[in-house]
Amino acid sequence: MNERTTLATELNVFAEFKPRLPEAYQTSAHIFLANIDPTLQSSVLHQVKRRPKIVALDTMNYWIERTPKELRETLRHTDILMINDSETRQLSNEHNLVRAARHIFKLGPKALVIKRGEYGAMLVHQNRAFSVPAFPLEQVHDPTGAGDTFAGGFMGYLASVNHTSDPELRRAMVYGSVMGSFTVEKFGLDRLRTLKRAEIHARARHFSKMTQFTL
Amino acid sequence: MNERTTLATELNVFAEFKPRLPEAYQTSAHIFLANIDPTLQSSVLHQVKRRPKIVALDTMNYWIERTPKELRETLRHTDILMINDSETRQLSNEHNLVRAARHIFKLGPKALVIKRGEYGAMLVHQNRAFSVPAFPLEQVHDPTGAGDTFAGGFMGYLASVNHTSDPELRRAMVYGSVMGSFTVEKFGLDRLRTLKRAEIHARARHFSKMTQFTL
Repeated sequence: MNERTTLATELNVFAEFKPRLPEAYQTSAHIFLANIDPTLQSSVLHQVKRRPKIVALDTMNYWIERTPKELRETLRHTDILMINDSETRQLSNEHNLVRAARHIFKLGPKALVIKRGEYGAMLVHQNRAFSVPAFPLEQVHDPTGAGDTFAGGFMGYLASVNHTSDPELRRAMVYGSVMGSFTVEKFGLDRLRTLKRAEIHARARHFSKMTQFTL
Repeated sequence: MNERTTLATELNVFAEFKPRLPEAYQTSAHIFLANIDPTLQSSVLHQVKRRPKIVALDTMNYWIERTPKELRETLRHTDILMINDSETRQLSNEHNLVRAARHIFKLGPKALVIKRGEYGAMLVHQNRAFSVPAFPLEQVHDPTGAGDTFAGGFMGYLASVNHTSDPELRRAMVYGSVMGSFTVEKFGLDRLRTLKRAEIHARARHFSKMTQFTL
């Protein structure tokens, strides 16, 4: 969490940071509010003119502790919350993730994506849980940005299909995991720069092989 | 790990413990050597008269540190090693689990089952990884015995089918996880005492729902 805490501190120092959405972005149907001061997340969301189809949000311990009221307000407008295990527990005051999810759904989100690093990710929505493992890489060079790339793959997939049915949310989880797994293979964005669509689909099929079984 | 360390210390005190296999057990085709002094594991294995079809073994930090030579000797006769993340790393001297598995395969086992508690379990064999999540329970009463019940479900399933093909190992992972998930629902063995076969199959189907997706 150190990296994220440092980020938050830096952002607090730049209190003058007031993001303005370019006009072309103001009609986006799929909004991902990355981890930042919830007041700024709200201000970005207010700049979206058409009601978005999906609003997803990332946050962390820093905001959960310091701006709980503002975070709650932003969560009221959030469809999908993407956080990690400990943030899930902290936000809900529940250790058990099933109960934690139920608590979080009362705050606004209809779906919860719990990111678990090397253990993969879990989706909870409509009383259903779906789990996807992390891709077992032989070398993890740099975990920075894995969560944001996950969000990018997740939202990118949903934007491409224009639905949020259960099978599509599952595929979004897989494509999010695929993208996160590529990011950590090299430093910074380096792996993404050279990534081919065919590689993405091949790894998605690999995720399928890693998890499928018949009874 | 405290519970397991205490167990090991107690077992060491009872140095006179020399398990004798009843005659009926001496021709067992499926052997699970539960977590105990590797010398005792070997002595039990030697009492099996017919060459078993599968030998699975559990061990822990205590034996990895204190009886590495004896453990290595026992591992030479082991087909499937069932340990947790940190034991995998300790035994192999490798943090990365992919490389750790490759190291462990040189010691004897052909398959590695990594138990990850609330994160589920992973099977590595023949360059393939298969992951199964933990069942998201609303209440975990007592985690004691979850690993041994996992092993029981896993071995029991394999014994019932008499093969160790990849699809069967995967199903064994699922039935192991199913059994572990029931064990923790109540204290000690209480949940297993009343468990019905139909409940086992229903939960296995639930695991399927939790992990399946189409691309």
